[in-house]
Amino acid sequence: MGKFDTLIKNGIIVTASDRYKGDIGIKDGKIEEISLKMADSDAKKVIDAEGKYVFPGGIDAHTHLDMPFGGTFSSDNFLTGTRAAAVGGTTSVIDYAIQPIGDTLENTAKIWREKADGKACIDYGIHIAVTDTKGKTLEEIPKMVQAGYSSYKVFMVYDNMRVEDDDLIKILKTASNEGAIIGVHCENYYVIKYLTEKFLKEGKIGPEYHPLSRPAVIEGEAANRAIVLSEIAKAPLMVVHSSCKESVEEIRAARAKGLPVMGETCPQYLLLSEECYHEENFGGSKYVMSPPIRNKSNWSELWRAVREGDLQTVSTDHCPFFMKQKELGINDFSKIPNGAPGIELRMPLMLTYGPKNGLSFEKIVEVTASNPAKIYGMYPKKGTIAVGSDADMFIYDPDKKMKVTVNMLHENVDYTPFEGFELSGYPVMTLSRGEVIAEDGEYTGKEGRGEFLRRGKCTVI
Amino acid sequence: MGKFDTLIKNGIIVTASDRYKGDIGIKDGKIEEISLKMADSDAKKVIDAEGKYVFPGGIDAHTHLDMPFGGTFSSDNFLTGTRAAAVGGTTSVIDYAIQPIGDTLENTAKIWREKADGKACIDYGIHIAVTDTKGKTLEEIPKMVQAGYSSYKVFMVYDNMRVEDDDLIKILKTASNEGAIIGVHCENYYVIKYLTEKFLKEGKIGPEYHPLSRPAVIEGEAANRAIVLSEIAKAPLMVVHSSCKESVEEIRAARAKGLPVMGETCPQYLLLSEECYHEENFGGSKYVMSPPIRNKSNWSELWRAVREGDLQTVSTDHCPFFMKQKELGINDFSKIPNGAPGIELRMPLMLTYGPKNGLSFEKIVEVTASNPAKIYGMYPKKGTIAVGSDADMFIYDPDKKMKVTVNMLHENVDYTPFEGFELSGYPVMTLSRGEVIAEDGEYTGKEGRGEFLRRGKCTVI
Amino acid sequence: MGKFDTLIKNGIIVTASDRYKGDIGIKDGKIEEISLKMADSDAKKVIDAEGKYVFPGGIDAHTHLDMPFGGTFSSDNFLTGTRAAAVGGTTSVIDYAIQPIGDTLENTAKIWREKADGKACIDYGIHIAVTDTKGKTLEEIPKMVQAGYSSYKVFMVYDNMRVEDDDLIKILKTASNEGAIIGVHCENYYVIKYLTEKFLKEGKIGPEYHPLSRPAVIEGEAANRAIVLSEIAKAPLMVVHSSCKESVEEIRAARAKGLPVMGETCPQYLLLSEECYHEENFGGSKYVMSPPIRNKSNWSELWRAVREGDLQTVSTDHCPFFMKQKELGINDFSKIPNGAPGIELRMPLMLTYGPKNGLSFEKIVEVTASNPAKIYGMYPKKGTIAVGSDADMFIYDPDKKMKVTVNMLHENVDYTPFEGFELSGYPVMTLSRGEVIAEDGEYTGKEGRGEFLRRGKCTVI
Amino acid sequence: MGKFDTLIKNGIIVTASDRYKGDIGIKDGKIEEISLKMADSDAKKVIDAEGKYVFPGGIDAHTHLDMPFGGTFSSDNFLTGTRAAAVGGTTSVIDYAIQPIGDTLENTAKIWREKADGKACIDYGIHIAVTDTKGKTLEEIPKMVQAGYSSYKVFMVYDNMRVEDDDLIKILKTASNEGAIIGVHCENYYVIKYLTEKFLKEGKIGPEYHPLSRPAVIEGEAANRAIVLSEIAKAPLMVVHSSCKESVEEIRAARAKGLPVMGETCPQYLLLSEECYHEENFGGSKYVMSPPIRNKSNWSELWRAVREGDLQTVSTDHCPFFMKQKELGINDFSKIPNGAPGIELRMPLMLTYGPKNGLSFEKIVEVTASNPAKIYGMYPKKGTIAVGSDADMFIYDPDKKMKVTVNMLHENVDYTPFEGFELSGYPVMTLSRGEVIAEDGEYTGKEGRGEFLRRGKCTVI
Repeated sequence: MGKFDTLIKNGIIVTASDRYKGDIGIKDGKIEEISLKMADSDAKKVIDAEGKYVFPGGIDAHTHLDMPFGGTFSSDNFLTGTRAAAVGGTTSVIDYAIQPIGDTLENTAKIWREKADGKACIDYGIHIAVTDTKGKTLEEIPKMVQAGYSSYKVFMVYDNMRVEDDDLIKILKTASNEGAIIGVHCENYYVIKYLTEKFLKEGKIGPEYHPLSRPAVIEGEAANRAIVLSEIAKAPLMVVHSSCKESVEEIRAARAKGLPVMGETCPQYLLLSEECYHEENFGGSKYVMSPPIRNKSNWSELWRAVREGDLQTVSTDHCPFFMKQKELGINDFSKIPNGAPGIELRMPLMLTYGPKNGLSFEKIVEVTASNPAKIYGMYPKKGTIAVGSDADMFIYDPDKKMKVTVNMLHENVDYTPFEGFELSGYPVMTLSRGEVIAEDGEYTGKEGRGEFLRRGKCTVI
Repeated sequence: MGKFDTLIKNGIIVTASDRYKGDIGIKDGKIEEISLKMADSDAKKVIDAEGKYVFPGGIDAHTHLDMPFGGTFSSDNFLTGTRAAAVGGTTSVIDYAIQPIGDTLENTAKIWREKADGKACIDYGIHIAVTDTKGKTLEEIPKMVQAGYSSYKVFMVYDNMRVEDDDLIKILKTASNEGAIIGVHCENYYVIKYLTEKFLKEGKIGPEYHPLSRPAVIEGEAANRAIVLSEIAKAPLMVVHSSCKESVEEIRAARAKGLPVMGETCPQYLLLSEECYHEENFGGSKYVMSPPIRNKSNWSELWRAVREGDLQTVSTDHCPFFMKQKELGINDFSKIPNGAPGIELRMPLMLTYGPKNGLSFEKIVEVTASNPAKIYGMYPKKGTIAVGSDADMFIYDPDKKMKVTVNMLHENVDYTPFEGFELSGYPVMTLSRGEVIAEDGEYTGKEGRGEFLRRGKCTVI
Repeated sequence: MGKFDTLIKNGIIVTASDRYKGDIGIKDGKIEEISLKMADSDAKKVIDAEGKYVFPGGIDAHTHLDMPFGGTFSSDNFLTGTRAAAVGGTTSVIDYAIQPIGDTLENTAKIWREKADGKACIDYGIHIAVTDTKGKTLEEIPKMVQAGYSSYKVFMVYDNMRVEDDDLIKILKTASNEGAIIGVHCENYYVIKYLTEKFLKEGKIGPEYHPLSRPAVIEGEAANRAIVLSEIAKAPLMVVHSSCKESVEEIRAARAKGLPVMGETCPQYLLLSEECYHEENFGGSKYVMSPPIRNKSNWSELWRAVREGDLQTVSTDHCPFFMKQKELGINDFSKIPNGAPGIELRMPLMLTYGPKNGLSFEKIVEVTASNPAKIYGMYPKKGTIAVGSDADMFIYDPDKKMKVTVNMLHENVDYTPFEGFELSGYPVMTLSRGEVIAEDGEYTGKEGRGEFLRRGKCTVI
Repeated sequence: MGKFDTLIKNGIIVTASDRYKGDIGIKDGKIEEISLKMADSDAKKVIDAEGKYVFPGGIDAHTHLDMPFGGTFSSDNFLTGTRAAAVGGTTSVIDYAIQPIGDTLENTAKIWREKADGKACIDYGIHIAVTDTKGKTLEEIPKMVQAGYSSYKVFMVYDNMRVEDDDLIKILKTASNEGAIIGVHCENYYVIKYLTEKFLKEGKIGPEYHPLSRPAVIEGEAANRAIVLSEIAKAPLMVVHSSCKESVEEIRAARAKGLPVMGETCPQYLLLSEECYHEENFGGSKYVMSPPIRNKSNWSELWRAVREGDLQTVSTDHCPFFMKQKELGINDFSKIPNGAPGIELRMPLMLTYGPKNGLSFEKIVEVTASNPAKIYGMYPKKGTIAVGSDADMFIYDPDKKMKVTVNMLHENVDYTPFEGFELSGYPVMTLSRGEVIAEDGEYTGKEGRGEFLRRGKCTVI
């Protein structure tokens, strides 16, 4: 019958540092063996990956599934969103649970677990976004970290979510004392408020004013401020969704001073440019997210920052809304729900456009899987292909050329920002804990099979 | 009888670019003629400056006379403060009128004029510190600029004075639209609040916690933020009392990008170091000012910034309090009135220590007189020695070696932060609009002879 | 008869720091008096400058008159070249005497004095270019400095003129020990050799290959090297004719480290761009000079460096050749005599294009007159308008709009690189030591009236 | 009997990105299988690594074995040197074959192969140092690359080895056209010449003048120059043995511009400081190498550069001389043979001091094994632990605390620069192609078993 449940043979295995041909033996959901050559008889199920790559399953550390925003909810819930993720080669997500003002962190986690449990198709962790430090919020953090919620987020913008600088220090200090990592959304709230009011008063209501109301310099400003606050708090910091050279430069400068500062970017910032906001018929609303898409001159800076290690992760900030939902802001850009889909295409986009911008496949594995696993306390269970690790991986066919259309995707939304993008290959099979959960562009696993990831501490700072 | 009222002969005249021997003929308060050699008979009064330097009268663009702070008032009023200034070679001040919350700018100016008129011994201008943008404050600015109040200030710190970032943009935009220049006190309010509360809760109440509650990185942070806000507002910016390399670097970087950003420092930041806060018997309170005195490593950076033109002015932030007043904070460093004296010693300190740090006499004239005059709209009436300019100048004896003691000074306060400093020369005579108003260390002019300076626009940006 | 020889009345006097209305009384070639208002009867000759500016006479610290190069001589000798300079508002030049290999410095100076004496129409100094350190060259330097040759030059390129790095250190050390200043032509000899040979071998012989054979990075490289050598020698350094951001950045970085490094640029680098090398019919040869004209992106960096004080002087590197002479390189760009005219237009070009690029008239005076005077040991005799200084000045009519054509110029050459440039004003009168030597575009002085400038030490480092 | 020749069980396997527990099955010199758990019966030989780490064998990409220098030879030949390397955990070296002036590259390689073949105890590659471009040297390069000599070196210093900048470009261009990588020894020859002559003339003959004759700024200068030359040649560049922040900054700046520039440092620059040159009784001569050991302030910059990826490799520049040989320079520091031992201690030093300076074990594997393998064309045969790779590895006991003494070492020399250094662990077994060649501090393999590494192209640029 064979000693393995599954054997993946003949593929080119890629990790964050290595690339080699080998066969992978899987048993009980884990990688049991990697060998130059196994016999088919060794396994119940044999998958031939000849001519294909075997990558560690992607980890998307920045998603917003089933999230309330501006009176509506992001349109992918944990079922539809993780199903799409799986098809695209992603085998773990970390979603943001947003603390309702006045509520406890414990209850916040509970709400999110209820959204996810029994729905998620891949394994999932939860970051907690702290929005209200009143009451006993800070005192809850140690116990929450113990329970596997080992990463926190703070918003410097958005009414009802943002905290002021002094609270930000307190959160940074309290969470980092427990070994937790803190992500910060960096933009200057007051400038956005000023510019938004100004534009609306001037009758400038269309989506093209969204980016003008949140210029790149105020992302750089806020990143600089968050870094200083983290320095005061002696806490590590993750600047999430860096979209522009302004924030990258602040991250780089901080790291050069030896501060434990890290950064994340997303495919949309690496590949799209601000012209998109001028798409006609309110089409610009598709790209309304924060920070906004920037001008092209930022691309090379962002790719370089990923390449050189100044940015450590590439996530999606997946937060889709149907065009119908976007129309909430038809007369006021500031009311357009912020967010766009991306969870399904991250791996294929990076594997196509990364190499054109100096990223090796190994580097892509590093920023989409290994680093998120290490930073967010899931390594070596997740994030690599090595014996003992969960058998999370996807098989990538470099000959499967595709052109993106929304129809091919499984995200629960009626557009993709990457419509028309050429892809030089595509995932053809995804395994999660040894199970084949997606094949040839369709999800084939059980619904709700995903498990909660009780995460530990960051192992790379 | 002679065609001049006064003749200053044989002195070495120094301007921001030149140094030469010449005689100066004064008539009706103005410099009428500069000549290689005049006859004594040309003037009613002849002053021999042989072996001495003749400098343009100093302009101190940052003073706080008779200012309410924390329930008390700074101890020099316009009489005592400007008298001391005159003895030290300063012939103009620009003082900050602080808008009382809820009051108009017009009334703010009126209050300050009442403090000054009939008391000031040298000419004085008034900056207006905007603390409250509610009501019609912003609408008042155009008319105030017309009335000669062509510079404004905004505090990013201090309860009851600070404004938030969006208001700061509005002030920057409104004032700059009128050609006014805006100075900003740059520190991060929330961090100070956090650290102060933290220290006090820990029983850390002494003056040595003052600098620790306001670290240099948060001055850099705030300078960076103010610069970004000024960029949004398309307004010029003066970062006042830069105390450390962190803010200097932000100013330099902004200028390198071509932004109209300027900076000011003060002798205390160039010459004192944070050890002073450990002076025993509450002596550390003498140096409680904001920003605080920094560690020595900042000195060379600040001198260099002055030398290379990244900082354009050296003022004093003169704001004295008697030790008795400082005792308001004997049990809580945050209650110590912020400020220290300096108005009298600026010129002698700069002329002694500037050259030791690479500043020529010409450069010292530039940053203490010519630049303030040009930046704050008083040039060429003030700020240089040239025909047509006011005959504001002082004669400096390079052989008059002194050692600073509080007793030799005329400031109305019982200490000087510069006690014991050696001076390699000293002003021996000061003229304001042609009148000799100080001689040999004593004020000899009439009280209240100073005139209000109705200032115009900045001529150097 | 009046106490002055000449009176210039009603003009706006501009110095490096001041601008004011005043009358200037001249006697015995010197400025005797500056006054608010003089009587016409005070002077034998009265010049009315109403509505016009009175500037200090320009000092062109970088000229090559009558210079042997590649088998020919630059086409302006001391008569024609200084005559043209005078018409354009320049009243002093410092020319480079090039040491013939094997000859002494004393003889080098003698050769150059013979070229100049009795021909020069304005006062002139001589820099000595050391090309050969063998023999007793270095031992001659102290005595040469005593004789008024207080500045030296070293070429890092050109066969028969260049010296290697170790000799460069020796010259830097020996000259700086005497208080002399050393200018260096910074380009990488070996790269030029390599690229030139490569291009010629490939049949690339036209003038458009001149800039390609000397890319900007090798000017930056050589500037960096020269700076390091000067640091080893503990000597001040003047990087002459900086043409690009690469060398500017090296100068700025050196200054930021506190090194006594200065820089010079020229109007051609501020105003022309490399497209010129493609001018048809061998027209590109007009612009063959070294360093070559760069691409436009350098303009803003160079203007900024002048504005912010990273470059201290603007000279011309005037070194004209007739098109006939340029044809020596018709079949080999490396044989085209290097150099172009510029001595006559420097002041009008700077006064037109400087203000468009953020330079005040005061800053233009600083970089074209005051700084060269101070750096090269002629201040305060030259370089400013102050009592006691030589009455070297020019009257500038801001209403005299012109368009440059070669025909209007007095340089002895058949083209100007600035053909067609609009000028927003023009010098209408030039005085040298009180004599009117040019008026309304014509030289009116005596030939050969210029005097040798026995220069002293740099007074600004 | 077992299917493997050797099984290493229970160790913690570390690669450049991963760390996990696993068993390694070796067959025919290669890693055949990695498994969670193997049976002892699977292999003829079972090695238990419980509680220990299994690292990829170190690759020392910079050694000078049996090298002629200044009339003598480095004291380790290929036998003694590689034997010592093996004991210390290094399983491959790349040695520099120095072209004798006038000789061919082919013969150069032959000479070196004769030194190595039959002597080397571990596998070895050969870089070729080009010293003479006359004749057909450059034309030989394509065929040499084909023969496995895929990396070249150029010296900017040392008489009889250095080449001028134009030749450097030619070598860069020719070699890079073949896909070869070029390392450059960066120091300024002429400055060293100048300073050496100066010191000797002043009677300053001791080893403490060695570092003073080669200051850090001239390493920075030469690195900058080499980078510019590589930019001209459009060639990748490896700056070897970067010793100071000056060269690191040039490398970082080049990389920030997107240039394919890499850098190497060595343990001596990370751990020793210039005080060593004052060791009495000519003890300073032990540290005479080039570049010299720098002051301590460079340590943090170098560690950071390794940590952040600005320096990609850590090699040794192993080049030992007995104290007796060092005495060639007893009366003239410039005659002291340049070089010191280090081949045996690199891995233990890095594994002890790396983590104290922010380097994970994974990062140490990267810079001592994976990167050298990838850069120098030996990956994946060498440089990692993965199936299919050569079974080159060493077992590291983290409990084996040691203190370095020369007696414990196997290098053929009578001192070590690291005498007295504490080590927090040590290699206890080394395998090369599956053979145990060192155990418990002694070489146990056959002499001369090492094979020539026919290397391919760099796979990381």
